Amino acid sequence: MNKVVIYGVGLIGGSFARALKAAGRVRHVVGIDRSEASALRAVELGIVDEAATAPEAVAKAIAGADLVVLATPVAQTGRILAALLPYLDAHTVITDCGSTKADVVAAARAALGARIGQFVPGHPIAGRETNGPDAAIADLYVGKKFVVTALAENPPQAVERVTSAWQACGAIIHRLTPEEHDKVFASVSHLPHLLAYALVDDIAGKPHADLLFQYAASGFRDFTRIAGSSPEMWRDISLANGAALLAELDAYMAQLAHLRERLAAGDGATLEAVYGNAQRARRRWIEAIEAAETPPPKDNAE
Amino acid sequence: MNKVVIYGVGLIGGSFARALKAAGRVRHVVGIDRSEASALRAVELGIVDEAATAPEAVAKAIAGADLVVLATPVAQTGRILAALLPYLDAHTVITDCGSTKADVVAAARAALGARIGQFVPGHPIAGRETNGPDAAIADLYVGKKFVVTALAENPPQAVERVTSAWQACGAIIHRLTPEEHDKVFASVSHLPHLLAYALVDDIAGKPHADLLFQYAASGFRDFTRIAGSSPEMWRDISLANGAALLAELDAYMAQLAHLRERLAAGDGATLEAVYGNAQRARRRWIEAIEAAETPPPKDNAE
Repeated sequence: MNKVVIYGVGLIGGSFARALKAAGRVRHVVGIDRSEASALRAVELGIVDEAATAPEAVAKAIAGADLVVLATPVAQTGRILAALLPYLDAHTVITDCGSTKADVVAAARAALGARIGQFVPGHPIAGRETNGPDAAIADLYVGKKFVVTALAENPPQAVERVTSAWQACGAIIHRLTPEEHDKVFASVSHLPHLLAYALVDDIAGKPHADLLFQYAASGFRDFTRIAGSSPEMWRDISLANGAALLAELDAYMAQLAHLRERLAAGDGATLEAVYGNAQRARRRWIEAIEAAETPPPKDNAE
Repeated sequence: MNKVVIYGVGLIGGSFARALKAAGRVRHVVGIDRSEASALRAVELGIVDEAATAPEAVAKAIAGADLVVLATPVAQTGRILAALLPYLDAHTVITDCGSTKADVVAAARAALGARIGQFVPGHPIAGRETNGPDAAIADLYVGKKFVVTALAENPPQAVERVTSAWQACGAIIHRLTPEEHDKVFASVSHLPHLLAYALVDDIAGKPHADLLFQYAASGFRDFTRIAGSSPEMWRDISLANGAALLAELDAYMAQLAHLRERLAAGDGATLEAVYGNAQRARRRWIEAIEAAETPPPKDNAE
C-alpha cells in the first residue's frame, strides 16, 4: 500500500503500524491522535512517518489513503467518520479495531450513508495492560485472531485489503457477523471485566479493606488482572454492547443464585459437580489452545 | 527438631518437608499419605526419610514426634486427629495447613478434647496449580505469609515451635483469630474461586460453548485460572467456610444487581466510577505488594 492513516497511535494502532512497516507492506504511514504529544512521540519512535494534527493536515492525509485504521475508543467512531468523509477518496478502505461491532456499524452507517461499503469493521483480539505509543510492538498480533465482521455492502476487494494487511501483521483471520461477535465477546470478555471490576470495588468499599488486600494472593491477582484496564474504555464497551452484556449478566446471576441456594443447603455434591465441570471444561480449552499454539513439525523446512 | 511427621506429602506438605530439611532444622521426617504410591514416591525423591503406611508404622511414627503437620484436605482433620491421639506424646505439637480455620478448630476440639492445647492451627498462603510429591519444592514458602490462628489453650512454646519451623522455610508469620481468618479468606480467596468456577460452568453449559471458548483470550485465561483448582478441595472449603462465604456472596450479588440496574439505565457515569475505583484500588494494592517484595538496599551486606 502507498499510504495508510492510523487514528490513535497507542498500543493497538501503533503496533499495527509497526507490524505493517516491518512486513514491508506500506510506503507511508500518517498518525492522527487526540493527544498531540502521542502523535509526535509516534513519529519520534518511528512508528509513523508523519503526524497530522491540524485540520488541513488531516484532510491532506485522508486524501488518497489506501487504508484508514481507527484504533480509538468505540464511542468516537461516528464523529471521526463524519469528519473524514468530505476528504474520502472512492478507493480508500476504512477499518476499525473496536471491541464491539453492532454499535460501530450503526455509527458508521449514520456517518457514511451510501458510502458504508468502504467501511470494513474488525476487531484484533490482542492487548496488554500497557498503553500509549511506547507500548507499541511489531509482534503484538503474531498468532492472534483478527475478527472481520464484513457487511453486505463491502466489495470483496475491500475486505481483502483489510484481511491481507492483518495477515501481514501475523494475525489469523476469523469471520463473524457483527451480532455474533457481540454475543461471543459479551460472554468471554465483557462480562468477566464487569465481574472483576465489581469484586475489587466491592472489597475496596469494605471498612476492613486494607486487611483484606493484605491477604489477597496470586489467585486474586490473576482473577482481577482485567480490572486494571481503562475504566473509560470499558464504560464505553459496556454501554455499546449493553443488550448482549445484560443477557450474559442475567444468566450468570441466575447461576450464582443457584449456587448460593445449594451452598446454603450444604449440598456438597452439587458444588463439586459444578466445580468439576468447570475444571474439566477449562482444561479442555487450555489443551486446545496449547495444541493450536504448537507449531507443526518442520518436515518441509529448509 | 528430632522427628517431624507429615500427613499428605503433596505440594504443600512435601514443600514444607523439603524446606525444613534444606534449613537443617530436622533430623528425621516421616511421610504418611492416603496414597501409598505418593508416600513411596516422596521417599524416592528424598522429601521424607521414611514412609509410614501400615497402622503400626503410623503409631510408631507419631510416638516421640516433635511436630506433626497435617497437609491434607480440611474435611479429614477430625478423623486423622482421632486416629493419632492414642499415640500422641505430651511434648508433641500438631499443626495444619488448612484453608479454613474455624471448622478445623471445631474438629480438633472434638477429636482431641482436653489435649487441644497441643494443636496450633495455621495456614500457609502459598500454592500453585501442580500437585503431588513431584511438585514439592524447597522454596515454595520463601517470602510468603503463614497465618497462625493460635488458640487460648496453646502454650507459647507450642506456638513458637510451629512459627519458627515456618520461618525456617522462609515464611513471614501473621496472626489472626480463626474467625478473622475465615472472613478474610472468604472475601479474597473463597468467593473468587466460586465466581470463576461459576463462570466457566455457565459458559460450558451454553449450546454454542465451543464457539465461545474459541474466542476466549488471555484475560479470560487469567480470570479463570483458579477454576483449574481441585473441585474436591474447594467443595470442602466452600462448605467448611459456608457462613462467611454466603455473607460475601450476598454482598457481591447485591453489587452485581446494582451494576445491572445502572447498565440497563445506560448510566455510564456510575459504571466508570465503579470501574475507576476498582482500577485505582487494585493499582494501590499491586504497588504495595511490589514495595513489600523489593529487598531493602544492601548497605550492610558483606
